[in-house]
Amino acid sequence: MATTATGGSADAAPRVSVLGLGAMGSAIARTFVERGYRTTVWNRNAAKSAPLVDAGASAAATAAEAAEAGPLVVVCLLDGAAVDAVLGSVEGSVAGRVLVNLTSGSPAQARAYAEWAAERGAGYIDGKIMGDPPYVGTPNVMFSFSGSRGAFEAHESALKELGTIAYHGTDAGAAAVEFMAQVAVGYELLIGFLHTLRLVHAEGVDVQEFTGRVAASMAGYPPLLASMGKAVKTGEYGPDLGSLNVQAALMDDMIAHRESLGVEAVRMREVKKLMDRRIADGHGGQGFSSLFELLPPRG
Amino acid sequence: MATTATGGSADAAPRVSVLGLGAMGSAIARTFVERGYRTTVWNRNAAKSAPLVDAGASAAATAAEAAEAGPLVVVCLLDGAAVDAVLGSVEGSVAGRVLVNLTSGSPAQARAYAEWAAERGAGYIDGKIMGDPPYVGTPNVMFSFSGSRGAFEAHESALKELGTIAYHGTDAGAAAVEFMAQVAVGYELLIGFLHTLRLVHAEGVDVQEFTGRVAASMAGYPPLLASMGKAVKTGEYGPDLGSLNVQAALMDDMIAHRESLGVEAVRMREVKKLMDRRIADGHGGQGFSSLFELLPPRG
Ligand SMILES: NC(=O)c1ccc[n+]([C@@H]2O[C@H](COP(=O)([O-])OP(=O)(O)OC[C@H]3O[C@@H](n4cnc5c(N)ncnc54)[C@H](OP(=O)(O)O)[C@@H]3O)[C@@H](O)[C@H]2O)c1
Ligand SMILES: NC(=O)c1ccc[n+]([C@@H]2O[C@H](COP(=O)([O-])OP(=O)(O)OC[C@H]3O[C@@H](n4cnc5c(N)ncnc54)[C@H](OP(=O)(O)O)[C@@H]3O)[C@@H](O)[C@H]2O)c1
Repeated sequence: MATTATGGSADAAPRVSVLGLGAMGSAIARTFVERGYRTTVWNRNAAKSAPLVDAGASAAATAAEAAEAGPLVVVCLLDGAAVDAVLGSVEGSVAGRVLVNLTSGSPAQARAYAEWAAERGAGYIDGKIMGDPPYVGTPNVMFSFSGSRGAFEAHESALKELGTIAYHGTDAGAAAVEFMAQVAVGYELLIGFLHTLRLVHAEGVDVQEFTGRVAASMAGYPPLLASMGKAVKTGEYGPDLGSLNVQAALMDDMIAHRESLGVEAVRMREVKKLMDRRIADGHGGQGFSSLFELLPPRG
Repeated sequence: MATTATGGSADAAPRVSVLGLGAMGSAIARTFVERGYRTTVWNRNAAKSAPLVDAGASAAATAAEAAEAGPLVVVCLLDGAAVDAVLGSVEGSVAGRVLVNLTSGSPAQARAYAEWAAERGAGYIDGKIMGDPPYVGTPNVMFSFSGSRGAFEAHESALKELGTIAYHGTDAGAAAVEFMAQVAVGYELLIGFLHTLRLVHAEGVDVQEFTGRVAASMAGYPPLLASMGKAVKTGEYGPDLGSLNVQAALMDDMIAHRESLGVEAVRMREVKKLMDRRIADGHGGQGFSSLFELLPPRG
């Protein structure tokens, strides 16, 4: 009798289907194959299934055939338009199965897919991925899930094969909220960082050495963020990063410095305006986190 | 014979003067006192010297008298206007001494102070502080210095008492460049984070729990930043965070999600525009760091 990588018999090995074999879908399918899952794959451009078939997966001729191969159907496509197209073609094949959609998208889309699945007798779990394809299967890739708790618990052990996982509740949109928010925080940091690389570059500083110092300073952020999150939650704003009175005294110089070099200063002008308003409102003794009070939507 | 905290005789103990006893100047003066330095302090509002005198410092009646008390004169005031006022009053007292100005400010200001000091026969070191006053005297406060190398080396051991120190070269403005750039990167992250707290708050997510997850994700940034710094330095942009083709597919959903909740989306709109331009220029296979190429000032 054939045995799988996990030591079980091939017949007893759990089945999983993966629809979408881009960089991420391929990494997911490969991880399932390597962990001994009986993996059926499908991709619009069929050529992408070849390396997975070599690794031990079965290729299905259509998305519907792939969906019918087992109880767990993982979808990982480019975007919502791609998901709409593929779901349309598996509409008659999902009843009684669980769909796990790992395609990046909005909370509203996730909620709509959950409804679509429910109407067709399928369970729905929305998942969002933060991390790089080569690290799928390691703790360095984070998966946020939300949607049907029963479906999640039934397939948790399979989903755990893929990385560090977290379940954000029964609202199918919750994983997308987490994802959109986490990605936005990352992009805010990184685009601001790139603008500031222009500043140090214009000043003749080695951008790679400066980056190393920024990377080192990241160690200080987890405790600072924790104290800021607590301040926002409780509304008790201590003087984090110093008082606004002291911080605001720096902003004109910083903005003038950036502008003198032709470096972008949108956020720094905004920060100055917010600090000045807090100070004018009598809150100059509070810290940076108190700017939250002025940001839309209020309340 | 009286002995100091460091075990030397009081007469042999090094002398330092501290001008400015706000939150930061007081922490600095206190650290010097505790490490056995013969510390002379001065503040515009003289009442602020009392706790330091209790701790063992000497209070001077004027800034000039404080400056004349020793070879090393540390200045830590609110801003450039305050430094201008105080330097005016010590003009005749600085010849042959080293001024270390730890007041936040611009590179241009630092260069002007260096010139001012040189014309009066004084050495000048510009210093910039990142950290909280209670942590002065520990490695958790970062001091960037630049200016006269000889003056820095002569007083390096005293400056090391204050925290983790780095010397950025003989251009007096270099420490301010580093400071302005590091503070800007921090503010970019933090104001973006606060806007995104509005998003998760509007979606009913606990802001403090979300913050904890953001803080945990910070661990992934040092290696990512390092690879981005290298990409910018070399101009070889791998697909960091995925290819721009894949990342751009998410941006419309993200922007629409923020706008639907009334959350600010300035940076996300900018990022989308930059990604679209890189893709249109044939660079859709590159990653986020390649957006650097489009940012002003170019070249
Ligand atoms: N790559 C990363 O670093 C990363 C990280 C986190 C999250 N993600 C997310 O993972 C998802 C997949 O990303 P990826 O890197 O795998 O992208 P990718 O390599 O560009 O692959 C895109 C996949 O979507 C399919 N597709 C696109 N339009 C389609 C349509 N109309 N009908 C059917 N299939 C369609 C493609 O099929 P063809 O091969 O036939 O074109 C391919 O399988 C995205 O939502 C992405 O945001 C990726
Ligand atoms: N606090 C922090 O967390 C922090 C962190 C990093 C860097 N820094 C920097 O450290 C410097 C000092 O900050 P701080 O927290 O000590 O500020 P602070 O507590 O507000 O103290 C300001 C100091 O400046 C003096 N001053 C203001 N205007 C003056 C004038 N025209 N003439 C003479 N003295 C004047 C004040 O004297 P009076 O007492 O007479 O008003 C006081 O000594 C700033 O450049 C700040 O950016 C602070």
